[in-house]
This record gives sequence, C-alpha cells and structure tokens, in this order.
Amino acid sequence: MKPMITAFADSPDKGEGHARDMRVRWALEEVGQPYDVRLRSMKELKEPEHLALNPFGSIPTYEEGSLSLFESGSIVLHIAGSNPGLLPIEPDSRARAITWMFAALNTVEPPIVEREAFMLLENDTNWFDERMPILEGNVRKRLAELSASLGESDWLDGEFTAGDLLMVTVLRRLEASNIPEGPNILEEYPNLSAYVARGKSRPAFERAFADQLAVFSGGR
Amino acid sequence: MKPMITAFADSPDKGEGHARDMRVRWALEEVGQPYDVRLRSMKELKEPEHLALNPFGSIPTYEEGSLSLFESGSIVLHIAGSNPGLLPIEPDSRARAITWMFAALNTVEPPIVEREAFMLLENDTNWFDERMPILEGNVRKRLAELSASLGESDWLDGEFTAGDLLMVTVLRRLEASNIPEGPNILEEYPNLSAYVARGKSRPAFERAFADQLAVFSGGR
Repeated sequence: MKPMITAFADSPDKGEGHARDMRVRWALEEVGQPYDVRLRSMKELKEPEHLALNPFGSIPTYEEGSLSLFESGSIVLHIAGSNPGLLPIEPDSRARAITWMFAALNTVEPPIVEREAFMLLENDTNWFDERMPILEGNVRKRLAELSASLGESDWLDGEFTAGDLLMVTVLRRLEASNIPEGPNILEEYPNLSAYVARGKSRPAFERAFADQLAVFSGGR
Repeated sequence: MKPMITAFADSPDKGEGHARDMRVRWALEEVGQPYDVRLRSMKELKEPEHLALNPFGSIPTYEEGSLSLFESGSIVLHIAGSNPGLLPIEPDSRARAITWMFAALNTVEPPIVEREAFMLLENDTNWFDERMPILEGNVRKRLAELSASLGESDWLDGEFTAGDLLMVTVLRRLEASNIPEGPNILEEYPNLSAYVARGKSRPAFERAFADQLAVFSGGR
C-alpha cells in the first residue's frame, strides 16, 4: 500500500519547492517508495478533516495504514527509519545523522524563516531597514558555523543522510525568489552553496521537484 | 559508564531552568540514568574544544563512550530510544510521540523564542509597541491550536512521552521572569497551564530542576 501525503493545492511559491512536502517527497524518492498525494486548499487546511491529521493546520501529513503523522521532520525520520538509504546502520553514525536533522530544523531553520517572514510581511514598515541587518546577522552566524563544520566535505557527516536532506531544504529557502529584496546570503558561503547544489543534483531531488512542480503547472 | 552533558557555568536565567540542558537532565531522570555535567563559560563555548562537540557553540552536548551528540531534541530522542519510559513500544504510538517532539521544537518553539528574544533585545526600540502584538499573535495561534488538540487529556497522545517532555519545556519558557513585560500568554489557555504544571510536578522534573538550580546556587 502506498503512503498518502498532503500538499498545497495552490503552491504559495509557484512551484519553487519550498513548501515542506518537498522534504517528504525527496525522502520517499531517495528510498524508492511510491506515494499518493492529496492536495489541500488553504481553506481545507483549517477544516476538521485536516485538523484531525495535523492540529496545526499545515502540510505535509503522512498516512500509511493505521499510522498518521505530521511534522515534516518526523515524517522524514519515519521514512528514514523504515527504509535503507537515509540513515547509517552503525548506531553512533545513525544518532549523529539524527542530530543533524534536529540541527537543521531547530538551529538553522528558525533564523532563516524569521528573516523570510520579515521580508515578506514587514517590508513596507518604517523599521524594516533598521531591523533587517539584525536578522541577516542571525542567519550569517548560523551559516558561518555550519560552513566551518562542513569544510570541504561533501556531506555533513560521511555519506548523504536524512540530516543532509533536511539541511539542504532549509538552506535553499535562502534562494527563494519570493523574497522581495536583500542579498543572497547563501552565496557568501561557497562551500554551503556547493553543498546545496550537490543536494539538488541528486536524481531523487530532481524527481521530487518535478512532481511538486507538476502540481503548480496543473500536470497532476 | 555515566554519560557526560554540558551546561552553562553561568545560568543566564538565574536557575529558572530554561536553558536546554534542562530537557536532557529531565529525560535522564525519567529513565533513571545517572550522568555527569561539565560546565562551560560563554567564552569556552566558542573555543575549539567545545566546537568539536557542537559546531554551533551551544549547550547541551552529550558524550557516552564513542558517541558524541548535540541538539537537545536529538539527545532526548537518543535517551528515549535507548531506555524504556519515554516512548511507547507500539510502533504507531512511538512514531506519533516523535511527531510531537518535532512539533514542540519546530512548530511551537520558534514563535515563543522569537517573541522572547524581541522582548529582551528590542524592548527599547521605537517599533516595540507596534510589533509586539504581531509576535504575541503568532504565539497565541500555536497555543490555541495546541490547546484544542490537547483538550481535557493529561498528555498529548496517551501516556507521558518525550513529546510531552519537550513540549512542556517549550511552553514553560512563557513563564520566564526575565521577559521584561507583556502578558503571561500561557495563562490564557487553562488546559495548557495545567499541562505544564502536570509536567513540572513529575518527580524526575523536580530532580532535574534542583540539579540545574544547584549550579546557579553554587552547590554543584
């Protein structure tokens, strides 16, 4: 039986793949697991049927037999834990890969999302110019630390893992074209830019990207 | 062999237990695992010895034999996965408990931390009064959704799990006395207030709290 995920019926980023179903699609493609997609309008997300799947009214959700999950990080961890390919077998390496999953979502993503939301929602305020450097500084702090840790390695800790998968999706938010202004901070860290490009060139990423784009293009 | 964690030598919250070592201490107490603590000054956190344990220069870290982890969520998950008591055995329930761990850290915590940082760092700006309601609104949105999901239950999904442990630590940040002004938003949701109180009354929480307070009081 194929798992069922939910995704936005109307992609807010016009198919750039920054919605969080992209992470789950990518993970499913990496492990070779076919899946079905149920599209939800913004209105449907706040209705009881969807809130029963995700009390925070967002996507993605994941249904597989009797199991129902939300939170993209948790869904990716479930997929990675149930299939070979996204987590090392050796226990220490496996625990470290999971550490990078949490680092992506709890340490690196929050300042990136805070800056993005500020640029989208407060770009016409009279405090925009003064606050923006603070938020850029918060992002740069984390990117500098991450860049130093990655060094010249291809991936964060040995082979590609679910930690890299989440980190790449978090970092590529900095490339979103819906951000009205501001520098491309990612380009200031060439090894991180190359890291994101490396992730995006994986065939599983490309398949997942094409599938989410097809929703926006009306092909699905 | 006892695991070793790191914690702040100088508690920024004067022993109120909002630093993220509290989560790890609580988890270790819940499973009955004794541990050692290495205290780090703010300066030491940015030195190579500590950055080798955590590239983001923060606490807590966790060392156990050959294993070295960072990120409080990952450490709690490792403890919960290696010992009985913090995750259900039944696979679906276990995956749902892990979903709540990610929900605590990736959906509920970010707006709470963003509001807290704003109150601490920007309370003397001329945009403070205008922005504050936006950030309070973001917190209330998540608390309202969480409150509706919890309902009259004691815990988020059946028995107490690592998901509850993290959620309680996230919510009790709203009680921090170092926030210079503003309403206690948590009290607006009586079932969430009772939920946090329920977590704090667990003997394992009380032991962990006393141990981190002893650091501030000079007793450790």
